[in-house]
Amino acid sequence: MSVFSNLLNQTQSKKLLNSSFHLYRCISFSSLSTTTTTPSSLDVNLSHPIYMIWGSNTGVGKTLVSTGLATSILSSSCLEKQVKFNYIKPVQTGFPLDSDSRFVYRKISEFFVNRKPEFSLLASNHGLKASVPAWKEISGVDLENEGVEKSGGLKDLCWYEERRIEGIEKDSLGAKLVCKTICGWKEAISPHLAVQREGGDMEDSWLLDSLQKNLVDGGNDDDGKRFWTIVETAGGVASPGPSGSLQCDLYRPFRLPAILVGDGRLGGISGTISAYESLKLRGYDVAAIIIEDHGLLNEESLISYLRNRVPVLVLPSVPRDQSNNLMEWFGESQNVFKLLSEIMQSSYSERLRRLQNMPKKAQNIFWWPFTQHGLVPEENVTVIDSRCGENFAVHKAKNHDLITQQFDACASWWTQGPDATLQVELARDMGYSAARFGHVMFPENVYEPALRCAELLLEGVGRGWASRTFFSDNGSTAIEIALKMAFRKFSSDHGILLDLCNGNMVEKHIEFKVLALSGSYHGDTLGAMEAQAPSSYTGFLQQPWYRGRGVFLDPPTVFIHSRTWKLSLPKALQFDKRKPENMTFSSQSELFCGTRDVSDLGRSYSAYISKQLSQLLESGSSAHIGALILEPVIHAAGGMHMIDPLFQRILVNDCQSRRIPVILDEVFTGFWRLGIESAAGLLGCLPDIACYGKLMTGGMIPLAATLASDAVFNAFKGDSKLMALLHGHSYSAHAMGCTAAVKAIQWFKDPLTNLNITSEGRQMRELWDAELASQISSHPGVKRVVMLGTLFALELEAQGSDVGYASMYAISLLRSLREDGIYMRPLGNVIYLMCGPCTSPRICTELLNKLYRGLQEFDQSKVERMQNFADCKP
Amino acid sequence: MSVFSNLLNQTQSKKLLNSSFHLYRCISFSSLSTTTTTPSSLDVNLSHPIYMIWGSNTGVGKTLVSTGLATSILSSSCLEKQVKFNYIKPVQTGFPLDSDSRFVYRKISEFFVNRKPEFSLLASNHGLKASVPAWKEISGVDLENEGVEKSGGLKDLCWYEERRIEGIEKDSLGAKLVCKTICGWKEAISPHLAVQREGGDMEDSWLLDSLQKNLVDGGNDDDGKRFWTIVETAGGVASPGPSGSLQCDLYRPFRLPAILVGDGRLGGISGTISAYESLKLRGYDVAAIIIEDHGLLNEESLISYLRNRVPVLVLPSVPRDQSNNLMEWFGESQNVFKLLSEIMQSSYSERLRRLQNMPKKAQNIFWWPFTQHGLVPEENVTVIDSRCGENFAVHKAKNHDLITQQFDACASWWTQGPDATLQVELARDMGYSAARFGHVMFPENVYEPALRCAELLLEGVGRGWASRTFFSDNGSTAIEIALKMAFRKFSSDHGILLDLCNGNMVEKHIEFKVLALSGSYHGDTLGAMEAQAPSSYTGFLQQPWYRGRGVFLDPPTVFIHSRTWKLSLPKALQFDKRKPENMTFSSQSELFCGTRDVSDLGRSYSAYISKQLSQLLESGSSAHIGALILEPVIHAAGGMHMIDPLFQRILVNDCQSRRIPVILDEVFTGFWRLGIESAAGLLGCLPDIACYGKLMTGGMIPLAATLASDAVFNAFKGDSKLMALLHGHSYSAHAMGCTAAVKAIQWFKDPLTNLNITSEGRQMRELWDAELASQISSHPGVKRVVMLGTLFALELEAQGSDVGYASMYAISLLRSLREDGIYMRPLGNVIYLMCGPCTSPRICTELLNKLYRGLQEFDQSKVERMQNFADCKP
Repeated sequence: MSVFSNLLNQTQSKKLLNSSFHLYRCISFSSLSTTTTTPSSLDVNLSHPIYMIWGSNTGVGKTLVSTGLATSILSSSCLEKQVKFNYIKPVQTGFPLDSDSRFVYRKISEFFVNRKPEFSLLASNHGLKASVPAWKEISGVDLENEGVEKSGGLKDLCWYEERRIEGIEKDSLGAKLVCKTICGWKEAISPHLAVQREGGDMEDSWLLDSLQKNLVDGGNDDDGKRFWTIVETAGGVASPGPSGSLQCDLYRPFRLPAILVGDGRLGGISGTISAYESLKLRGYDVAAIIIEDHGLLNEESLISYLRNRVPVLVLPSVPRDQSNNLMEWFGESQNVFKLLSEIMQSSYSERLRRLQNMPKKAQNIFWWPFTQHGLVPEENVTVIDSRCGENFAVHKAKNHDLITQQFDACASWWTQGPDATLQVELARDMGYSAARFGHVMFPENVYEPALRCAELLLEGVGRGWASRTFFSDNGSTAIEIALKMAFRKFSSDHGILLDLCNGNMVEKHIEFKVLALSGSYHGDTLGAMEAQAPSSYTGFLQQPWYRGRGVFLDPPTVFIHSRTWKLSLPKALQFDKRKPENMTFSSQSELFCGTRDVSDLGRSYSAYISKQLSQLLESGSSAHIGALILEPVIHAAGGMHMIDPLFQRILVNDCQSRRIPVILDEVFTGFWRLGIESAAGLLGCLPDIACYGKLMTGGMIPLAATLASDAVFNAFKGDSKLMALLHGHSYSAHAMGCTAAVKAIQWFKDPLTNLNITSEGRQMRELWDAELASQISSHPGVKRVVMLGTLFALELEAQGSDVGYASMYAISLLRSLREDGIYMRPLGNVIYLMCGPCTSPRICTELLNKLYRGLQEFDQSKVERMQNFADCKP
Repeated sequence: MSVFSNLLNQTQSKKLLNSSFHLYRCISFSSLSTTTTTPSSLDVNLSHPIYMIWGSNTGVGKTLVSTGLATSILSSSCLEKQVKFNYIKPVQTGFPLDSDSRFVYRKISEFFVNRKPEFSLLASNHGLKASVPAWKEISGVDLENEGVEKSGGLKDLCWYEERRIEGIEKDSLGAKLVCKTICGWKEAISPHLAVQREGGDMEDSWLLDSLQKNLVDGGNDDDGKRFWTIVETAGGVASPGPSGSLQCDLYRPFRLPAILVGDGRLGGISGTISAYESLKLRGYDVAAIIIEDHGLLNEESLISYLRNRVPVLVLPSVPRDQSNNLMEWFGESQNVFKLLSEIMQSSYSERLRRLQNMPKKAQNIFWWPFTQHGLVPEENVTVIDSRCGENFAVHKAKNHDLITQQFDACASWWTQGPDATLQVELARDMGYSAARFGHVMFPENVYEPALRCAELLLEGVGRGWASRTFFSDNGSTAIEIALKMAFRKFSSDHGILLDLCNGNMVEKHIEFKVLALSGSYHGDTLGAMEAQAPSSYTGFLQQPWYRGRGVFLDPPTVFIHSRTWKLSLPKALQFDKRKPENMTFSSQSELFCGTRDVSDLGRSYSAYISKQLSQLLESGSSAHIGALILEPVIHAAGGMHMIDPLFQRILVNDCQSRRIPVILDEVFTGFWRLGIESAAGLLGCLPDIACYGKLMTGGMIPLAATLASDAVFNAFKGDSKLMALLHGHSYSAHAMGCTAAVKAIQWFKDPLTNLNITSEGRQMRELWDAELASQISSHPGVKRVVMLGTLFALELEAQGSDVGYASMYAISLLRSLREDGIYMRPLGNVIYLMCGPCTSPRICTELLNKLYRGLQEFDQSKVERMQNFADCKP
């Protein structure tokens, strides 16, 4: 526990406590409620240094370091430059007997009394909340007789003590020390045990919110001063907090820079290094390590391990005599603490400078994909300091520098799946896999992560049809591989292979085309591009080698408008006028219902497809349709269009009956993106080949897989290597990608780890609030809504050049949503929210609410703009 | 330190020690020498369970666990199933007063005396080496008067004690306990400090070798018994060993499965979790965690953290009374130790079963790239259990199951760079980056790893010409991007862009071709394939969409044969008969010398290139040469051909003078693969665009970069998004890849971390022994040798179908080299050794020696095969 208990004997400290308790002045605190919502905002003010003090173990002297640091920093105060030092202890057990904030408050007061500084010091100590037993201990009052407000088992504690130490310059404004204990429990045990025994259960979000409020307080009240804030944790880095979450996980959303108090004792090298590694494994930056000298030169081993990445400071040995008031020790240690504070100051300044300069540097040296650099002014460049689960922590420099949270609603190009817990798990697995394997050669070899990943893919998304896994690096390469597989299979099935091998046919007389739907998109490399219909992406300026080697059908689409699912038919299918009631659906489940196969619509789809294919095949052209390729249900990059699943199902069945291999491009749709592990399940049919990527690794690193049936694989068998599939990337089946996939695939479908999954592990609950979605679909500015699984997309009603991929129409709406904590990216006038498979519906509702509010403001401003425009007319 | 010292008071133990010392029986040990070589082999026998016991801190009871485990396992001995238990303590300080092996030996003897088992027990304790002070302490003899052999400051210690405890069945063979201390130091401090104070300095390799020998001893001497081996570490997981290396790093090459003895005390949750994470960060598997009960329920938090991944066992509280002989405690703990041993046994069996089944499973579900599955019998599938630096740890099941080391001489498809130290650094960075960022959206954003990586690329390989970094996932995508960049630049430079925008030209009338060299290879996706000349990879069966959109020149090549660098000219350049002396080079540096530009050869290259280009441009074809693409110096996948750098330089200069953008494909050659950071430096000219991948991340994960000059970037500027480069993969600039690249790029070029780099950080020393290389180049079975940087390649002399990519000619040679500890892969009849930029020349020499030996045997067997063939003739 705290150093306090080691240094003052208990009777003595009890006496001190009692004597001062009667002097406290009660001031009012805003009542903090323990609600279940996550904190609305976890901004971290960067206008002054804020550090978190961690210990490599309990009893290594965190509080001594906090105190020493405060003495050094407060001593640097002078008439011109005054200092305010905030010390926050969020969680204290053994309270009030042990109180680190009180220790800091008292020791510093004592130190300054002895030192007689030039300036005065106003020191205070606050206790905000306590468990009932701790509260009783302090007040001596029986609770039932008191009107103290109860919140989540913790009592408001109006404990306040202050002391003014006059400096030589009597009238100076003086330095200020504010010490706070946010919550205290009586027993000197781990906080989570104390909660079990004394009550005071709280969600992590409450504690974060509360800490956040105190951080804000610390930064804003006295302008013109130098500020410092120190937050001291309890126990070791991975000691549980009140809820049982490890503190290194609990405080992660703030990602405050860390000072690690190491262990100078025997065994302390190991403990310090391990604690450092646990912090790194949560993405913390450690600015310095400080250890007490025990004569064992532990610092030498630490320095050697750290290779100058992190400075290591050594404190003089702390007197073990309990009667020692430590004043001499603090005096001796001043140069160390001064150095520490300088390191912290310069690390803080450097970070800030780097954050501030990043947008300009990025503009100067990056070449962003899909970006017209000229259209991105410096102020629009987002500086991402870190991510925690679904949220970016973003640097902003408006009134002052701060780090603020934005929900990553573009799922970083649709790759993201982890919540904060999965992210930590994946991080550890990434470290493990890198250490165990790095990357190792794949062909003709086997290693655990690749094997397990292939097993999981075949048992999961490949269940019932796939028997082989071919790994590559991204969706685009997975598609190129799929096309090669399909063409070979087609050649084998249709006698072309035999003819070629026997010399009955000449290569150059054979032409393969793919059958695909207009508006589908399968990747950026040439082979994948060839499988898509001409579009903005395929023009000569973009892709001089593109020819469009496909036959492209216009598909029917479905969407919600004015609360109703509607069907939109392409021109080619509008030959028979359909009754309006046949152009709507009562529900989403009707849309996906298999009985639609025998409907009128089904028959007309069938006739249309059959006619198209027959015409093509009978045209006498030398071209073969060597493959059908589909994005199941959703055309993503093409503008988040939902394709009528009935149409796709009939197309698949027709092709399979003609022995045309069917490729499903599940790079976007796979792994619960659409609320189901494989979107083939939505179509109700099975492919011959399918491609996976993006979410497969949980959003960590690139890895793709092309799954194939045995029949496809067999088309590559032969006596010669030249018959094999001669395609493979250097990092084929790299161990880290496979390790991430193994964790993510299992995590997403396990109801124990993903609360959105129903107990059978096959279904995901609806994430988007139906009523809100309906409201949005009725909004006059909204042309259509598509929602399925983790996707909520809408097309804004727009005209002319405001429509389409290059449109900038949505920019002002998205800009205001970013201010509101949602990071979105447009596809022209189509915008979307995308969460992870584990994101709680509550958060989705929050997002929809913000989106709806944003839409209303956007509409309003549009009206105003038009009004202004009308007013300006001559 | 050891539990021993806590449990026996010092006087008492000293007495015991002295009394028994005079009873020891000296037996001979092979003298272990502390040479500087790495252990020749670090095989781990898998025929019985071997575990390593780690502590989350010092004093948590590792030795008690070892002892308890031994009592439980030895107690399971019976007449039918006898047990041998080996306990090894590699490093002991406080020795001989503290001796964990002695503690185990004595406690178990005592336990069995009390228990009167059915069978007899033969227990022994050995001490192998000790520092001088420890040696003196034991012998009481002044050293100068003794003839004890000295090795590296450690003395051979012939300490042996044994005891037989008769069972009820007097004549039973009985169980056997062998306890060993490998080296001991007198002071009870960290081993690295003890070494500093007492001598006994050793390389890690010596200790590993020594441990390895004792592991082997343990496994082989008594067939038919059940064996167990336990290796107990000293202090905490990251406590330094004798050399100062952290023990978790030191023992990593064995990667023995771990038992972690956690900490049940206050703060112990944190310490145990951190220790666990440090083990995971080195790629260890932890089979169980065991903690002593201190009444704090630490196990609950551990179980919650571990999510059932690892069982957590709780031992009864250990009596603190020093006079307690612990017999009662061991009795009480038997059920826990029995459970532990069952967990260990089943974890061992499961691992073994999995390893044994992996080849078959892999064959059934993988689709390996570039592999004809029919040609890979099950016994040829390599099971890679892990990698440590440049070595694979491979499972083999010949006489018995074992894990053995193979040098990864194909550098896992040319991706690998890390030595063991860099691998650990990268592993920690991977964990950090995953925890801090996972992956975050790149376009219009900036985050530290991407920015730093781009900075390092532009300062390094892009120095002097590049100003923009475009990230993608692999070499192939980087090339497709480069081609798009080049074509746009060409369009812009040659008025095509303007004509298109003004409608003066129609897209379909423009055709772009690339200029490239025959035999070059740029990746597997269609766009990259189009830039290479027709080859085995491009036939219709492989790539039905391939057209070969290039103009391909045959280049002159250079190689070593019979100790001489020779030039080989393509047919087109053989028009003037050159004197033989002009077809050789005195040295490699002559080859790369800039003065060759003004040679006869230079002029004839120049004339030839100029003629080819002029012909092409004047032919009236509508095709433009829109880009030159080159693999600088080495055509890798094309068969490790070295291209005359003079020819490439002249080609680049000619193209640049015609405003044809030049792309260097440095995916293979970049980052020191050829002994220089960018192979452009070998050519002596700068590109407009260059592509990087493979080694860029140090061999961890896929990441690629296309670097471009400002002029290229500017060709994409405009008012519309449609003018931008509309290409980008989901994981563009993913944080983990960039983080790995940042570490690797710096590590490779820093003389402090890469000892192969000269102090200016610009040059890499020669890794391959010149004389050995010369000998190999003179071998009759060798057609040519190419060596440069980390590459040593040779083409085997072969005829007919034995030549070329599909050839199986080299298979038997490579198989025998794998038996010799080198994992190579052929490119048909071309084979190569490839090391990392940090690999020590000593290891390279070892590899060359083995290769030379292999060649001689291969030749011999060929002669014999031919002899046999001749003898069989009718």
